[in-house]
Amino acid sequence: MSYNTFGRMFRITTWGESHGPALGATVDGCPPGIEIDPDFLQRWLDKRKPGQNKNTTQRKEPDAVEILSGVFEGKSTGTPIQLMIRNTDQRSKDYGDIVEKFRPGHADITYWQKYGIRDYRGGGRSSARETAARVAAGGVARAVLNQMLPGLKITGYMVQMGEKHIDRSRFDWDEIGNNDFWLPDAAAVPEWDAYLGHLRKDVHNSVGAVIEVVAQGAPAGLGAPVYGKLDTDLATAMMSINAVKAVEIGDGMATAALTGSENADEIFMGPDGPVYSSNHAGGILGGISTGQEIVVRFAVKPTSSILTTRKTITKSGEETEIITKGRHDPCVGIRAVPVGEAMMACVLLDHILMHRGQIGGAVGDTLGRIG
Amino acid sequence: MSYNTFGRMFRITTWGESHGPALGATVDGCPPGIEIDPDFLQRWLDKRKPGQNKNTTQRKEPDAVEILSGVFEGKSTGTPIQLMIRNTDQRSKDYGDIVEKFRPGHADITYWQKYGIRDYRGGGRSSARETAARVAAGGVARAVLNQMLPGLKITGYMVQMGEKHIDRSRFDWDEIGNNDFWLPDAAAVPEWDAYLGHLRKDVHNSVGAVIEVVAQGAPAGLGAPVYGKLDTDLATAMMSINAVKAVEIGDGMATAALTGSENADEIFMGPDGPVYSSNHAGGILGGISTGQEIVVRFAVKPTSSILTTRKTITKSGEETEIITKGRHDPCVGIRAVPVGEAMMACVLLDHILMHRGQIGGAVGDTLGRIG
Amino acid sequence: MSYNTFGRMFRITTWGESHGPALGATVDGCPPGIEIDPDFLQRWLDKRKPGQNKNTTQRKEPDAVEILSGVFEGKSTGTPIQLMIRNTDQRSKDYGDIVEKFRPGHADITYWQKYGIRDYRGGGRSSARETAARVAAGGVARAVLNQMLPGLKITGYMVQMGEKHIDRSRFDWDEIGNNDFWLPDAAAVPEWDAYLGHLRKDVHNSVGAVIEVVAQGAPAGLGAPVYGKLDTDLATAMMSINAVKAVEIGDGMATAALTGSENADEIFMGPDGPVYSSNHAGGILGGISTGQEIVVRFAVKPTSSILTTRKTITKSGEETEIITKGRHDPCVGIRAVPVGEAMMACVLLDHILMHRGQIGGAVGDTLGRIG
Amino acid sequence: MSYNTFGRMFRITTWGESHGPALGATVDGCPPGIEIDPDFLQRWLDKRKPGQNKNTTQRKEPDAVEILSGVFEGKSTGTPIQLMIRNTDQRSKDYGDIVEKFRPGHADITYWQKYGIRDYRGGGRSSARETAARVAAGGVARAVLNQMLPGLKITGYMVQMGEKHIDRSRFDWDEIGNNDFWLPDAAAVPEWDAYLGHLRKDVHNSVGAVIEVVAQGAPAGLGAPVYGKLDTDLATAMMSINAVKAVEIGDGMATAALTGSENADEIFMGPDGPVYSSNHAGGILGGISTGQEIVVRFAVKPTSSILTTRKTITKSGEETEIITKGRHDPCVGIRAVPVGEAMMACVLLDHILMHRGQIGGAVGDTLGRIG
Repeated sequence: MSYNTFGRMFRITTWGESHGPALGATVDGCPPGIEIDPDFLQRWLDKRKPGQNKNTTQRKEPDAVEILSGVFEGKSTGTPIQLMIRNTDQRSKDYGDIVEKFRPGHADITYWQKYGIRDYRGGGRSSARETAARVAAGGVARAVLNQMLPGLKITGYMVQMGEKHIDRSRFDWDEIGNNDFWLPDAAAVPEWDAYLGHLRKDVHNSVGAVIEVVAQGAPAGLGAPVYGKLDTDLATAMMSINAVKAVEIGDGMATAALTGSENADEIFMGPDGPVYSSNHAGGILGGISTGQEIVVRFAVKPTSSILTTRKTITKSGEETEIITKGRHDPCVGIRAVPVGEAMMACVLLDHILMHRGQIGGAVGDTLGRIG
Repeated sequence: MSYNTFGRMFRITTWGESHGPALGATVDGCPPGIEIDPDFLQRWLDKRKPGQNKNTTQRKEPDAVEILSGVFEGKSTGTPIQLMIRNTDQRSKDYGDIVEKFRPGHADITYWQKYGIRDYRGGGRSSARETAARVAAGGVARAVLNQMLPGLKITGYMVQMGEKHIDRSRFDWDEIGNNDFWLPDAAAVPEWDAYLGHLRKDVHNSVGAVIEVVAQGAPAGLGAPVYGKLDTDLATAMMSINAVKAVEIGDGMATAALTGSENADEIFMGPDGPVYSSNHAGGILGGISTGQEIVVRFAVKPTSSILTTRKTITKSGEETEIITKGRHDPCVGIRAVPVGEAMMACVLLDHILMHRGQIGGAVGDTLGRIG
Repeated sequence: MSYNTFGRMFRITTWGESHGPALGATVDGCPPGIEIDPDFLQRWLDKRKPGQNKNTTQRKEPDAVEILSGVFEGKSTGTPIQLMIRNTDQRSKDYGDIVEKFRPGHADITYWQKYGIRDYRGGGRSSARETAARVAAGGVARAVLNQMLPGLKITGYMVQMGEKHIDRSRFDWDEIGNNDFWLPDAAAVPEWDAYLGHLRKDVHNSVGAVIEVVAQGAPAGLGAPVYGKLDTDLATAMMSINAVKAVEIGDGMATAALTGSENADEIFMGPDGPVYSSNHAGGILGGISTGQEIVVRFAVKPTSSILTTRKTITKSGEETEIITKGRHDPCVGIRAVPVGEAMMACVLLDHILMHRGQIGGAVGDTLGRIG
Repeated sequence: MSYNTFGRMFRITTWGESHGPALGATVDGCPPGIEIDPDFLQRWLDKRKPGQNKNTTQRKEPDAVEILSGVFEGKSTGTPIQLMIRNTDQRSKDYGDIVEKFRPGHADITYWQKYGIRDYRGGGRSSARETAARVAAGGVARAVLNQMLPGLKITGYMVQMGEKHIDRSRFDWDEIGNNDFWLPDAAAVPEWDAYLGHLRKDVHNSVGAVIEVVAQGAPAGLGAPVYGKLDTDLATAMMSINAVKAVEIGDGMATAALTGSENADEIFMGPDGPVYSSNHAGGILGGISTGQEIVVRFAVKPTSSILTTRKTITKSGEETEIITKGRHDPCVGIRAVPVGEAMMACVLLDHILMHRGQIGGAVGDTLGRIG
């Protein structure tokens, strides 16, 4: 029902504006007795922190997270965990021009139309800064998952930026952390770097991207019919991220071009249960996980705040032009990678708790044994 | 929280299995005093009814809807409206082979793994028959919308089936109702017909599709930050439909290839308020409607129940093969068109009621006037 | 969010009007693999069935429950269980007089004011017949509880009717099923019988009552802070029953007159864990069960539909008088006994599933061992 | 679904422990454009602030509320309002004795049993300090209500403390703010003062109380069948307050002793609509407001933390005794008065927004006109 809460049993309610005193997440439903280390949460926040390299906004924010409740002597108590991040570097003057004008492609105009009031400073609630709260909450989810499912691994990376695509034949999990673009393809990095540099410096433009998030080691049986499908919740989670315009599970849009015999992953029997000939399904059948890799992809549109002149109108309805100064990401998709990972963690934990409640048993237990 | 309920203020809870005595939808939150005509609901059900032409399953179901509650003297009372559809044509013998074997690409195996019990008859709860209940509930939503927003028009159509795509230069709204494929491109019909006929009769295969649903005449201001975005809810709605693997808003995946200046729709002032140079955004900015056409697209994977031999395993873990007899859709995407329309209607009505609650005023009123 | 749904993980959505074609409950979240026997559900429905003796309404309804979904080969599948009860004995003509007039003390006037339309036949949705759906759903909850917690026993009984109170010194669990009043005090039966008979036949009046529901054998640890307290949910459950005006946990209102030393139950160590010197708390501390008997009490106001002339107004605002004919309970509290039991079952199961989800382990497992 | 959230459209999620760094409330669903003045919120917080007189705990807390989000230039933006109250005066050493021992009548033992971990400092999450967050959130609700329904007046007062009852023949609304007990009966003040002083100083005991909260000027039509009844939500709201053991609407438990003719309020026609001969119903029929005064009462048990020796056990299961030092309220009911008012405000606003969403029109509009 809430507009600002995500999840069923593991619920995150984010709050705060880009240039308000603080923003954060109220995390409700965390199991008790889980070690919650602020440094562990900070590690994920640092992944999306702005100003880390020339390819992201130069806004400098420590994004330091404070745990205000729900943790006692280093462990979760089962009560709400309040995570707060103070906003520090708020050069509000940078935004002077957008007080009266609406940025094309931005939430400015719709917030104004709906509410008749908007915190224009840095986009207020519509700013990508909201995702900092998700990443902090996702850190709590990861802490729980690490204890419940040590084998689970959630990894996000970029597969496309504008006209550049990765070469999957060069896919290397170990490269992902080694470059500014979370690329699994080391050879592509210089090329992407030059491409984005040109867009940013020469043509003052921004560009879109596609992020892929994979969960390895998730058990079969997570998810549920019909409106609680695992893929449905992943779509909800990813589409709620700023600037996301599309979500794909497994082969996604490409399944439209496939025949039934091409698309359906054949099933064989492995030593530890069913194995599949392929994973067109992205690890989900009928909304429930198969035990294969869970694969979700989402497209992030290019930042609408650019240094190029665009036609727009003012609050009073006059036609005008706008150039957005301020420090913006030339490709906001880069920083969406840890956000996608955080949402994957929240969705999986939520479904694990729900599964445990309805089915019982330990995490990953299912009722239907095979073989 | 529920696994079987969709919506906030206008809530549909669907229930029932493909071959159980009945299935239906509990519609909660319908405003009072709305004329609910069973024939009106039936009209939409007939749109997705099986057995209407050679391109859909030959299963014959009248899919007659009964209103069991919430309507008095032809009008909604504001209490739950129970819609029931009796299952009649259940040739359960057709499904004998899938009692022990799992169909590749089907929910058979995951339902079994999760629950340890499954109603294998026609896929039980995972059957596309569940969508009949959605279409009936969507009819109630349309009845409300027709009274609240007479100018609103929701239309779904196919844009791709396998290797076939529509030619948007020939787009004709009036053609959509005139062919088996809900195609806005009359010239394409014979070609698609031959293509699907070949797949069905000659190679005993199925194929995927892409459906596009457009809402015209929706007011600006519908939707809300952050987890109640209109596009997020549309993604949730469409991804929850059987066999859907991807959802796009506006330009969707294509936005990844665009620059900020290409993607952002410029704003001008029209006689009745803001107008836009284009609609890459699909009518939604920051999760809130702009007043432009709302455009959502989704990909439906090919039916996994085909007459071609596929490798699979049994409940006891033996490797085997399966051929799915029974009457299945060669392209389940065709019948997903009215389902997508129904979900669009439910999402829009839900957001209209939520908007009215938080903002007040008449439907479509917003607080921020422009010009 | 819903107005017609109760529960978190075990959710019942009731629907239907007193004189519509049918009423029922959509039960969502039932664990899979539970034996659901229609006769078992019917047993509880028969407990509240009208027309069983002279002390309840003479309306004759078989109240036969049909299971339309969610059960396959006698066992729950984990999908929604739709329970339908057809309305049969609907002497609508009996209600002719209340089409235009509002019954004092009845929902007639408020439904009309809110919705501008009401199904006046038998009170429509506000009729106590809605509780038949709860009792059926409660039967499903009991079926689950019987398998999960064989030691759990839920018993309701009357402790007061008008000026009559039971004598707790004569309390006998075995007597409860042996009389029309669900009285644990056999000696009181003739007296209560005469008292109610006089009210009904001689003075054409009705009377209020107090029902007590006790759960024996519930584990410690059920419930949660702060808005998910077990006692809060019991209050919600009981206050939602028609005509209920008050709910007490343990000593209830009487605690206001106690001192801290009188009220706080002292704790000792028993062979199987903590034991208490008394149970003023009604088995709940801080919203979480202690393992003692869970005790809830609720007051049911007298039926407002009586054969005595009362002053009221018409829909058009004219002052007038009304006598309610039709077949009404002289003490609706009697039939509220099985309803209170059903709600207790639903609340306990809901909290057991939630506890299992957040804490894990088997039913009744807690993390904090004592001794 | 959440354990820590209250409300449907106007939702408060409270967080924080008694002796953690801070506690607060995330307020979601506040309409935009409402003036939110920190001093206005503070005014209500000061009403329940501890240490104000000898009859409440001597703990000194400024209880200063900080608005961290959702308010821009003094007005609500429609996004979540985060209210934070820093904990300052935390003499944790006072609680040394309860680290190992459970206080009889307190949540200590059940929290431990459920979670296996508890923040014993001041009761952690089970402390009455949680209600400070409710009062702050209630202040936001009042700010909205003041703008929407200027005529609405919500007033709480004590009607019983231990063996002392108010004399309703001396009821004076204007006296309520003039004494430490929120008493509408000035003459009773010295008597109550002496009574509580004796309990506190001489016998080191505490005592229970009954609080009554009345809403005047609420429109007819608020509330809804069946599980969204206004009285049900009020019961939920009040029972969720610490130490509350019973809730009554209107005549409450007393209705059990009434006959139908005594209980049902007769209806007449007044200049502005229906008027009633009495208000046994407490302003609610069928779960929907009648337009009369809305009357709710709740019983608060005596504080379990007292200076009297009580028998209990330790975490390791040894039997022992405990005396609770620290600064506790001799009658926690006194400070429950502003909490009850806050919950009434939240419930009414929530139902007003829900009503506006389902019915439309301005606040208080209904569809069924009378006369």
